[in-house]
Amino acid sequence: MSHVLESTVFDPSRLLLEETLFHCANGYLGVRGNFEEGYPEGLASVRGSYINAFYDTHPIEHPERLYGFPETGEKIVNVTDAQGIVLIVGGERVVLEPGRTRGYRRSLDLGTGVASRSFVWRSSTGTELAVGVRRLVSLSTRELFAVEYSVAALASALDLELIIGLDGDVENFFDPSDPRVSGSAFKPLEVLSSEASASGRGGRLYVESRTRSTAVSLGVLSDFSCEGGSGLEVGALRTATGASARLLFHLEPGEVFRLTRKNFYADSRRHGRVAGSVRAIAARLDSRSFEELAAEQAEILAGFWKRAGVEIGGDGGLDEGLRFNLYQLLQSAPCDGASSIPAKGLSGEGYEGHYFWDAEIYMLPFFCYTNPALARGMLMYRHSTLEGARAHAREMGQKRGAAFPWRTIAGRECSAYYPSGSAQYHINADIAYAAWRYYEATADLGFLVEGGAELLLETARLWLALGHPSPEGFRIEAVTGPDEYTCIVDNNYYTNAMAAFNLEKALEARAILASQAPRELSALELRLGLGEEERTLMARAAASMYLPHDRERDVSPQDDGFLRKAPWDFAGTPADHYPLLLHYHHLTLRRFQVCKQADAVLAHFLLPGLAAESTVRNSYAYYEGITTHDSSLSYAAFAAMAARLGDAEKALRYFAETVRLDLDDAHGNTKDGLHAANMGGTWLALVFGFGGFRPLGEAIGLDPVLPRAWTGLSFRIAYRGRSVLVRSRREGAVPRTEVTLEAGEAIRVEHGSGSSLLSASSPLELPPS
Amino acid sequence: MSHVLESTVFDPSRLLLEETLFHCANGYLGVRGNFEEGYPEGLASVRGSYINAFYDTHPIEHPERLYGFPETGEKIVNVTDAQGIVLIVGGERVVLEPGRTRGYRRSLDLGTGVASRSFVWRSSTGTELAVGVRRLVSLSTRELFAVEYSVAALASALDLELIIGLDGDVENFFDPSDPRVSGSAFKPLEVLSSEASASGRGGRLYVESRTRSTAVSLGVLSDFSCEGGSGLEVGALRTATGASARLLFHLEPGEVFRLTRKNFYADSRRHGRVAGSVRAIAARLDSRSFEELAAEQAEILAGFWKRAGVEIGGDGGLDEGLRFNLYQLLQSAPCDGASSIPAKGLSGEGYEGHYFWDAEIYMLPFFCYTNPALARGMLMYRHSTLEGARAHAREMGQKRGAAFPWRTIAGRECSAYYPSGSAQYHINADIAYAAWRYYEATADLGFLVEGGAELLLETARLWLALGHPSPEGFRIEAVTGPDEYTCIVDNNYYTNAMAAFNLEKALEARAILASQAPRELSALELRLGLGEEERTLMARAAASMYLPHDRERDVSPQDDGFLRKAPWDFAGTPADHYPLLLHYHHLTLRRFQVCKQADAVLAHFLLPGLAAESTVRNSYAYYEGITTHDSSLSYAAFAAMAARLGDAEKALRYFAETVRLDLDDAHGNTKDGLHAANMGGTWLALVFGFGGFRPLGEAIGLDPVLPRAWTGLSFRIAYRGRSVLVRSRREGAVPRTEVTLEAGEAIRVEHGSGSSLLSASSPLELPPS
Repeated sequence: MSHVLESTVFDPSRLLLEETLFHCANGYLGVRGNFEEGYPEGLASVRGSYINAFYDTHPIEHPERLYGFPETGEKIVNVTDAQGIVLIVGGERVVLEPGRTRGYRRSLDLGTGVASRSFVWRSSTGTELAVGVRRLVSLSTRELFAVEYSVAALASALDLELIIGLDGDVENFFDPSDPRVSGSAFKPLEVLSSEASASGRGGRLYVESRTRSTAVSLGVLSDFSCEGGSGLEVGALRTATGASARLLFHLEPGEVFRLTRKNFYADSRRHGRVAGSVRAIAARLDSRSFEELAAEQAEILAGFWKRAGVEIGGDGGLDEGLRFNLYQLLQSAPCDGASSIPAKGLSGEGYEGHYFWDAEIYMLPFFCYTNPALARGMLMYRHSTLEGARAHAREMGQKRGAAFPWRTIAGRECSAYYPSGSAQYHINADIAYAAWRYYEATADLGFLVEGGAELLLETARLWLALGHPSPEGFRIEAVTGPDEYTCIVDNNYYTNAMAAFNLEKALEARAILASQAPRELSALELRLGLGEEERTLMARAAASMYLPHDRERDVSPQDDGFLRKAPWDFAGTPADHYPLLLHYHHLTLRRFQVCKQADAVLAHFLLPGLAAESTVRNSYAYYEGITTHDSSLSYAAFAAMAARLGDAEKALRYFAETVRLDLDDAHGNTKDGLHAANMGGTWLALVFGFGGFRPLGEAIGLDPVLPRAWTGLSFRIAYRGRSVLVRSRREGAVPRTEVTLEAGEAIRVEHGSGSSLLSASSPLELPPS
Repeated sequence: MSHVLESTVFDPSRLLLEETLFHCANGYLGVRGNFEEGYPEGLASVRGSYINAFYDTHPIEHPERLYGFPETGEKIVNVTDAQGIVLIVGGERVVLEPGRTRGYRRSLDLGTGVASRSFVWRSSTGTELAVGVRRLVSLSTRELFAVEYSVAALASALDLELIIGLDGDVENFFDPSDPRVSGSAFKPLEVLSSEASASGRGGRLYVESRTRSTAVSLGVLSDFSCEGGSGLEVGALRTATGASARLLFHLEPGEVFRLTRKNFYADSRRHGRVAGSVRAIAARLDSRSFEELAAEQAEILAGFWKRAGVEIGGDGGLDEGLRFNLYQLLQSAPCDGASSIPAKGLSGEGYEGHYFWDAEIYMLPFFCYTNPALARGMLMYRHSTLEGARAHAREMGQKRGAAFPWRTIAGRECSAYYPSGSAQYHINADIAYAAWRYYEATADLGFLVEGGAELLLETARLWLALGHPSPEGFRIEAVTGPDEYTCIVDNNYYTNAMAAFNLEKALEARAILASQAPRELSALELRLGLGEEERTLMARAAASMYLPHDRERDVSPQDDGFLRKAPWDFAGTPADHYPLLLHYHHLTLRRFQVCKQADAVLAHFLLPGLAAESTVRNSYAYYEGITTHDSSLSYAAFAAMAARLGDAEKALRYFAETVRLDLDDAHGNTKDGLHAANMGGTWLALVFGFGGFRPLGEAIGLDPVLPRAWTGLSFRIAYRGRSVLVRSRREGAVPRTEVTLEAGEAIRVEHGSGSSLLSASSPLELPPS
C-alpha cells in the first residue's frame, strides 16, 4: 500500500500548512518540514524539532486564583535545530524566491518513509543549479534524523560554499502580535557546550543543552560526510550557542555533490548521559549510507502497511487521506513507555505537546488491533504518571484513587481552565477503558501485573470517591463530559457509563490476577490498601450506576438537565459563528441543547449493549440534530455509529469529513499541527464502523457494511495472537465478506446472522447483512 | 446616640487593622487611619487615600482565554497622599517607637465624626513633647479632608521643624512576596504638575496627576495655616512628584503650636477642570477653622443619628458594634449618583474598590429607609452604567436587556472568574429589587422616570433572553446563585424567585408610568424598542416562573439538583479547613450539599410570602444545617430569618456574629477594609429581623421580637414621607411595642394580630406577639 504525497508548486501561503503535512517523525523525534536553506524574508514559518515528552515548565498566572488551580504548566520544547544547510553561490544565498526557482517538487513517500524536495535555482547572473533533499526520521533508530542534500551544477561550472548549522539558540514559536495563539515567549533551552570538528570529507558538530526549570539535558550530534565535487575545503566553527561547518567545493557541469548528514538526539530522561549516548548511537550507524537507512525505513513501513493497511475500493480520494492518516499515526507513536501521542503528534506546537483523553479513546485502538506493543507503551506511560494522578485526585478533593490530569506531559495537570479541564473526569475511565481493551485484545497478563490492574483499580476507586449511592442509583455530580459545550453538569451519561465499565473491569482484572497471579495481586492490594469492603462498594456502584434515560423520547440524556434546556437557535446562527466557542460565552452554550461533539453517542459506540437498540437509534438521531462537530473528534464517532446502525451512506458523509481533515486543512489550523486523534478516528470509523468490528473477549464481532460508492473494503485485525484479514467486496448490489485467519488459533466470529468459528484451514464467508 | 471608639495602646500587630477601623470617609473620599508622621522601620502599613470610583484600568491576562472573558479590569487608585506631617526635634524625627512614647490614645467619635490621636514623645535626650491630631473627612464638603496637628512643649523649651508633605508618588498596596493578596504592582497615577507656596503663617501645596490609562485628572490642594510658637519660618518646596512646606518654630514650656491643614480633592470625572475646582472649594472654606468644620460635622452626625439611630437596651457590646457599623455605612455612602458603595467602603483596597450585588441587597436598604436620597444615588449610579450592562449582556450572549457586571467600578465586568462572577446573573434582579423597594418606600415618580423604570425593564428583559418557557414553568439554566459553593446550576431558587419579582415589578413600574407619566413612558419604550409582545412574555414568565420545591421534605431546593447531592462530611472537616474555599476545589464543593451563605433562605427573607410558611420554616432548618457562613453576608440573613420565624434567641446568636465582625476582626482580614455589606446586614437583621419591619406598598408591617437579654429596641423608619418611630420594651416577660408617627400622613401598620391605622395624633400600641 504505497502512496506519495506531493506538492509541485511553492505557494508561500501554504508554507506553514506544508511544514506540518511534510514533517518527519517517529514518536520520539519530530522535525517539521522546514526548508534547510531557510526562506525569503517575511515568510512566516514555524521552524521546529520536538522530542516527545521533552518539556520544560512555566508558571501559570491566574487573574483570580482559587484553591487547586494549577500553578505550573508543562510545554514541549522546540529543540536544537539540525535542519540548517545553507548554500552560497558567488556570494548569493540559495533561497526559494519566486522567479528564481523552477521545477519545485516536494513529496512524502508513505510507502518508504522518506520526504524529498528538489528544485532548480538560478543566480542573479543566470547560473543554474539543482538541489535535491531527502530526509527521514528513522523508525528503527528513534534518535536519528538523517538528511541527504545534493547539489548539481547544470550548464555552468560552480564554486560553492555550503554551511551546515547546528543551532542551539532556539525558542518556541511565539507571535507577540497575537499572544492568544502561542501564549507567551518560551525559550527554555540553555546551551551548555558546543563542539565542531572537521577532517577530510566529513566532520562532527555537537551541542549540549539543558532545560532551565526541569534541568533535563539534550545532546544533539551531527555527523556529516560528502562525496562529489573537487577542491573540497572543510572548516568547523563553534560558538556559544551552536556549531557549524563550512564546505567549499567546485562542481563541473553535470557533476553532483552529495552531503549526508546524520543527526542524533538524546535526552537525559531516556538516555542518561547524553553525550556518551549520542556518540555510541552514531558509532553504531557510522558506516550506514543514507541509501541503507532509507532501505531499512522502507522495510519497516512495508511491515506496517501489511499489518495496518486498510483498503477502500472505489474511492481514490478517501484512500489517499486514509493512508496519510495511518502513516501519521505511526509517525506519532512512541515506543518507550515514557510518553504517549500528543494531540498534534510531533508535527507542531499546538496544545503544547500535551496528551489528552483522545490518545486512549481515538488513537490507541488503531495500535491495539494492529501493533499492540505501541498501545502497551502508551498505557505504561500513563502508569508511570500514576503517582501524579493520585496527587491530583487529592488536590481535587478525592480522598482515594487517581485522577489523571486533563492535559499533561509528565503527569501534572496543565489545564488552566477546569470547567473543560480537570472537570473532565471521564479521562480516567477512558484510560481504564483502553487498558481493558488492550488486555482483552492481547490477554497480556504481564501488562495487568506490571501496571494494567493498578491503572484499572486506581481509576475505579476514583469513582467511589467522586460519586455517591442514592435511591435512584450511583450518581456522579459536577463533571464535564466530552461535549465541552455543556460544562459542569450532574450525571453526564458518557462519564457515568464509562465509570461503570471502569468499575466492572477493574474487578474483572482483579479476578484474573487472583487466579493467575495471586502473589502479585496480594502485593498490589497491600500497597494500595485495597480490601474487600472497597471492592464491594465498587461492585455495587458498577451495578447500580445511574444512567439518565428519557422515557418519553427513549433517548439517553447527556446529563440530568440536558433535555429540559431550550433548543439552540441554529436558524439564527450565522455560518461564520462556527465554531460556536469562538463566538459565544461558555455559559451561553451551556444553557442550550447544543453539542460540540459526540457525547452520549460516543458512549453508545464504545459500549455496545449499554442501551437498548431503540435508545441508541433515537439518541443518534436526536444528537445528530444538535451537534455542531466543532471538535474534530466528532465526525468519527458519528460516522462509526451511523455505519453500525446500518446507514452506510450517512456514515460515508461523516467519514469523508474525517479522512481529509488535515490534508485539506478543513479547520484552517493544521499549520499548528495535525489533528492526530481525528486520524485515529478515521481508522475507528472504518474498522469499528464500516467494518463492524468489535472485540468480544474470546471472540470478535464483524458486520461490515459498504456505502454504494465503495466496491470493497479490507483490513486486518491483530487479536490475541491472531491476524485476521477481513475483505468485503460488492458483488452486484450485495456486499460479501470473506474473513481469513492468517495466523494464530481458531476464533469465534459473531456476525449479524449468528456466530461461526474461524479457523486457519478455511476462510469464513459472512452472509450479506 | 454618641459613642467613641478608642484605642489606648499602640500595638504594632493591630496597626493594619486600626488603619481600617479608624479611617475617615464620606462616600467620595476615604483616608485610612495612617499616622501623619509615619512608622518605625519594618512595620507593615497600607497607606492609602481613595476616591470612590476613581480608578484606572489594567489588562487581565488569562492563561486560557475563552470568548467573553474580560480583558480589562478596573481598580480603585491610591491617590495623592495628603496625610504626611513630619516633626523633627533636635535632628530626631518623632515616630512612635516603643519606649519613647507614653499616653498614646486614638479615638473615633461616632457622634461628631472626628478621629483623634495623641501621645507624648520623648527624645533621646529626654525632652518631651505632646502631639495631638484631629482629622475629619467632611460630610458636608465631600472634597475636604481636614487635619489639625498640635504640638505642645512640656517641661523644656523646644526648637521644632515640621514638614508638611503632599506626595503624588503613590501606588497601590502590593506585596511582591504574596501576589495573591494584592494582584500585581499598580501605580497608575502620573504627576503632571506640582506647586508650593508659603507666606506669613501659612501656605498652599498642590499636586495634579492623571491616571495612565483612563486619563482622569486628580487635583489635590493642601492649604495650611498655623498658630502658636515663636520665631516661625515657613518655606515651600516642589519636586517632580510632590510638594512640601517646612516650618521652623520655637515653643516655650507649656506652649502649643497648632497647624490646620485643609486638603481638597477634585477629579475631572466629577469636577471637570480640577485645578479651578479645588481652588474654588478652598476659597469657599478659606475662613473656616477646624473647630468650625468639626461643629458642622457634628451637626450632620446628630441629624444622622436622629434619623438612623437604633438602640438596643440591655447589651452594651452589641450597641457599640451596631453604632460603629451604622457610622461606617454613612461614611461609605456617596451622594453623587456616579458611584456606589464598594465592598470595603473606602477603607481599604480589598476587592479593588469594586461594587457588587451586596450594595443593593445588603447596604441600600439602610439608606432606603433612613436616608432615601443616598439610596437613590446608588441606583442612579447603576442607571448611569446601563449602556455597559447592555453591552455585557450581548457579550454574554443575551440578545436583549442589560446584564450588570458582577464586579465593577465604571460598568465593565471585572470578574476574571465567571463561575462565581458573571454567572451570578441574580445581580440584575438584585438591582431591580432595590430599585422597586426604593420606589415603594418613597413613591418617587421622578426616580421611575429618570431611570428606575428603565432599570427595571432592562433587567426584566434579560430574564426573557436568559430563560425559557417549558411545561413545568419558566426555567433559567446555567447560573450561579448567591451561594458560591454551588456554581453553575439550573434553576437556582434565589435567582428564579428574584427574577420573577423583577419581571412583575418592571410591569408594575410601567403601569405606574402609563398612568402618571405616559409621555415619558412612550419615549422610553420607543427608545428601548419595547412593545406589547415582550410585555406579554414578561407577564407570562413572571406568572409561570419555575421554583424548585421538594414535596417530601417541604423544602425549597437551592437548584434543580441540589437535594440529590451527597451531604458534606462536616464531621470529617478539620476546623482549620474553613473557609472551605481555601481548602477545597470549587468542583468538590459543588458536588456536595454545603453552602457558603444563605441562598434560598435569603430569597425567603427578601420576598415574604414567596413560599408557604411551612416551606420557609423547613428550608431554614435544612439550610442552617449545611451552611458554613464562610461569607460574611450569611449571618445577617440567618439572623433576620430566625427573628422573623420567632426564634429571637437564635437570631441573637447570628446577629452577634454580624455586629462586631470588623471591630473584633473576626475574619482576620479587616486590615484589607471593612466588610461593609455585613454592616448593612446588621441593620437588616435588626430592623427587618428583630423589628419585624417590612414594606407593604401603602402600608408597613411591624412585628418586633426581643431576645431575653434585651430590655428594649428602638429604631426609626422613613417611609413615603413619614418618619415612624418604633420602640419595643420588655415589661416583665412580655415585650410591648409603641409605634409613633413623627412626621407625615397616617399609615396602616400590619402586625401579628391584624392591621391598625397609625396617625400622628396617637401612638400605636402593638399587642405582644
